[in-house]
Amino acid sequence: MSEGRTAEDLAKNQKEVSVAEFFERNRHLLGFDNKKKALLTVVKEAVDNALDACEEARILPEINVETIDMGNDRFRIIITDNGPGIVKAQIPNIFAKLLYGSKFHSMKQSRGQQGIGISAAVLYAQLTTGRPAKITSKPNKAKQAHYYELHIHTTSNTPHIVKEELIDWKKDRGTKIELDIEASYQKGDQSVDAYIKETAIVNPHATIIYTNPKAEQLIFARATDKLPAEPREIKPHPYGVELGILQKMLGYTESRTLQSFLTNEFSRVGPGTAKEICEKAALLPGMKPKEVTQPQIEKLMDGIKNTKIISPPTDCISPIGAALLEKGLKKEVNAEFYASVTRTPSVYRGNPFVIECAIAYGGEQPKDQSIRLLRFANRVPLLYQQSSCSIFKSVVQTNWRPYGLQQSNGSLPAGPVTLAVHLASVWPPFTSEAKEALAHYPEIIKEIKLALQDCGRQLGSYVNKKRRINAESQKRSYIEKYIPHVAEALKELLSLKQTDESKLKILLKELLEKHRGKLEKVEMDNTEYDEEFANIGKGEKEND
Amino acid sequence: MSEGRTAEDLAKNQKEVSVAEFFERNRHLLGFDNKKKALLTVVKEAVDNALDACEEARILPEINVETIDMGNDRFRIIITDNGPGIVKAQIPNIFAKLLYGSKFHSMKQSRGQQGIGISAAVLYAQLTTGRPAKITSKPNKAKQAHYYELHIHTTSNTPHIVKEELIDWKKDRGTKIELDIEASYQKGDQSVDAYIKETAIVNPHATIIYTNPKAEQLIFARATDKLPAEPREIKPHPYGVELGILQKMLGYTESRTLQSFLTNEFSRVGPGTAKEICEKAALLPGMKPKEVTQPQIEKLMDGIKNTKIISPPTDCISPIGAALLEKGLKKEVNAEFYASVTRTPSVYRGNPFVIECAIAYGGEQPKDQSIRLLRFANRVPLLYQQSSCSIFKSVVQTNWRPYGLQQSNGSLPAGPVTLAVHLASVWPPFTSEAKEALAHYPEIIKEIKLALQDCGRQLGSYVNKKRRINAESQKRSYIEKYIPHVAEALKELLSLKQTDESKLKILLKELLEKHRGKLEKVEMDNTEYDEEFANIGKGEKEND
Repeated sequence: MSEGRTAEDLAKNQKEVSVAEFFERNRHLLGFDNKKKALLTVVKEAVDNALDACEEARILPEINVETIDMGNDRFRIIITDNGPGIVKAQIPNIFAKLLYGSKFHSMKQSRGQQGIGISAAVLYAQLTTGRPAKITSKPNKAKQAHYYELHIHTTSNTPHIVKEELIDWKKDRGTKIELDIEASYQKGDQSVDAYIKETAIVNPHATIIYTNPKAEQLIFARATDKLPAEPREIKPHPYGVELGILQKMLGYTESRTLQSFLTNEFSRVGPGTAKEICEKAALLPGMKPKEVTQPQIEKLMDGIKNTKIISPPTDCISPIGAALLEKGLKKEVNAEFYASVTRTPSVYRGNPFVIECAIAYGGEQPKDQSIRLLRFANRVPLLYQQSSCSIFKSVVQTNWRPYGLQQSNGSLPAGPVTLAVHLASVWPPFTSEAKEALAHYPEIIKEIKLALQDCGRQLGSYVNKKRRINAESQKRSYIEKYIPHVAEALKELLSLKQTDESKLKILLKELLEKHRGKLEKVEMDNTEYDEEFANIGKGEKEND
Repeated sequence: MSEGRTAEDLAKNQKEVSVAEFFERNRHLLGFDNKKKALLTVVKEAVDNALDACEEARILPEINVETIDMGNDRFRIIITDNGPGIVKAQIPNIFAKLLYGSKFHSMKQSRGQQGIGISAAVLYAQLTTGRPAKITSKPNKAKQAHYYELHIHTTSNTPHIVKEELIDWKKDRGTKIELDIEASYQKGDQSVDAYIKETAIVNPHATIIYTNPKAEQLIFARATDKLPAEPREIKPHPYGVELGILQKMLGYTESRTLQSFLTNEFSRVGPGTAKEICEKAALLPGMKPKEVTQPQIEKLMDGIKNTKIISPPTDCISPIGAALLEKGLKKEVNAEFYASVTRTPSVYRGNPFVIECAIAYGGEQPKDQSIRLLRFANRVPLLYQQSSCSIFKSVVQTNWRPYGLQQSNGSLPAGPVTLAVHLASVWPPFTSEAKEALAHYPEIIKEIKLALQDCGRQLGSYVNKKRRINAESQKRSYIEKYIPHVAEALKELLSLKQTDESKLKILLKELLEKHRGKLEKVEMDNTEYDEEFANIGKGEKEND
């Protein structure tokens, strides 16, 4: 046994760990737990980035996704978009440096947020096949495209440029990324196929051409030429700011007074509100931000808490809309009843968010299984970690029995139902860097539950009406069964003619109807058919 | 609506995100989801570090944990250890820089691994109360202690020293950390109380003095003076190395030939094995590591895969031991039957690990609820994210019915059982930075299941024997019920005396015994009592 170590011995090994080394070793944190998921994660990060870039440039996205099986668990992934391209100087950092991007500090809805996703895919490719990422990008129609081959220097988390050159590219604008990775392909609920299909549902403005590893091409054609409303960037709302952040903001601000600091750096704080905050904090509005002391910051926090400030603006988020979400579901699921709702915006920790929900009932869906739950955050399908997600939790905690579904404690309800829930937010709180599940913020769970209850009530009134009518029609059929016998008996007793017997039957039926009222019809809601959606998810199959 | 942005517009906002900013915004990734959990996480990170430091210095740990409720959701946490202390120059980095530490690059079992935990606690304190961390450390008995007040400069992830001085400290050696945080206190399964209690169970060599926020002091006295075997640092095993890592190692090595690279940088590779690897890879053992090309690295990977290499050494891990784990459980749970097992070491991705498991059945435990599952990794209790953990998954996927427990599909079994499962490894694969659950590696799940089955079989033979004996004893009691009546009837028929009747009863009983055999005894296994464990978890209650 070796001797115990002293503080000096221990100090020798203490050193910095680069964030790239950290994730290289903890790649499961980024969604690279296994080969099947790795395929999905790489495609997802690239497509999410492509959609974000196109929308920021107000371009209708057309995205080409190729997944090529090269045998021996190796896949080549090529994703090409028609977005604005990336300026030369930024390409190495964007693709080969973790925690680098434009969205972390901006408060508006987007798919990416952390500046990790695509560089993590590059890291995974490098780790499993040793091959560099190949990037082509063309921001200017009149010029040639930049071509890069990149590795990540993990001990320093910096790009290592293997090759760089100018090349001709037939596209006007856009970006292409090519990665060789270790992966495996399987169809099913958590496959790339499912991801692409669900992405098309919630992004009807995008065309996606997907070639799966079996070399089958699926085309998800654009269903609308209207881009989603552009989310506007906002400043933080005072209610969401934490003490430490406020302290930091006071240190960095260029505002000269506390009053102007409050009005300049926050949303929904005008001069009146700023004055009120200062008053309630017992601080002078004219004091210099950098001179606010620690106890004064605590007072300022109290001042904010005790001042009534209107909710943050919500044009920083761009929900799908109940009608569009429901239509998307209609294309995906052939059901007999649909309902949907978009809630009014709400706020968690100062971040605005909107919950949307759509439900499809009946049709060909299996009756005695758990319902199918589709989860979305900022128009991205979430396919893993269902049971850790606050959407799942909200569905499980909602009592579905009054709405006509069976449910055992702590489980999803059972019944012929597909349920889609979408969170649109400036900052969806994911439980991991892999962005697979939403964290359990009470404000979010409350809003999801309200949306579910809204759809649930509509479902319940449909299901209960259907049940009532079925019961009534069963009763009638019992009575109707006797009508011929009664008619025949009467005919014999009264020696009537054959025609009289027929008349009698009709009379008896009329009597029944008069007595029990006309049988209601269950409204079928699947007759509607929208031209716009004719192509979504259909996917013309062609051989590549 | 604004115009679409060009690549140049987008480039303006692209920048680096510091890892401290990243976690400041994503603090839930580090276990700071809510106030209740925050209290646990801060205590856990500090205690884990203290235990690691003491063990590395081969000092029997004595750790003082104070949690002071200051009202208004503010708590002061003070953790003091008798460890080796920290040299002055390292204090700011260890406590106020994320991703800094000694364990990330070292391959041996320890509680900490990432260099995030304690600095994350400091970050959380700063974020919620704005107060600096106060650190006192004394590595040298003869000198004064270093005292620091530290903030983290989040935009650069560097320490900001608020105050530094030399002070007198009555302790010989040790480290003290004091943090003010926003938190809330609740008793129960996921509380600090539960964490401390379970920590004492799996660390019988440590004394922990815990003062809870109600100012009640609980003393978990050391139960053994024997430190756990010291884990030895190992080199990576060739089977666990990934292509990208191999590529990097080839670039960094100081070895001059491929042959010496293989023998120097890996465990279990001697000259013979190295030669065989080179042969199977069709590479010259004398070639320079830096000159190995990309295709040759792929060949080298194949060479490794096709060479039989013995498993990595296992003295890098230090399991608790089945007997000690079972004894720990005995102190915690008053049951009627116990079983335990320590598996032989196994390997996932080149990392050695050992699974241990102990089970307690019956006694005062509730019969019709799910079993109670205690999860541990490297002697640290895991209290959150149960359903995401591979330990949970392994328990759920094991068929417990043959072992006498009820179980519905996809659920924990039900019955009067407490089950403790411990993973000891060089690198436990956690699903998040908060280290709350183990990732689903098939090798790990397989080993856990084998351990469960082993304990399960022992449990099953006990439960089934008990059931058999109960059934037999019930049958006997039916027959015995009639003996007095038969005896009385015979007495009347044959006009016997009272004493004859008594004799008859005895004879009939003997006849029954002869016929059905002697009733077996169910062995009670809770009679054993170990002096060593007399104090664990008892906790003498005193007022502070």
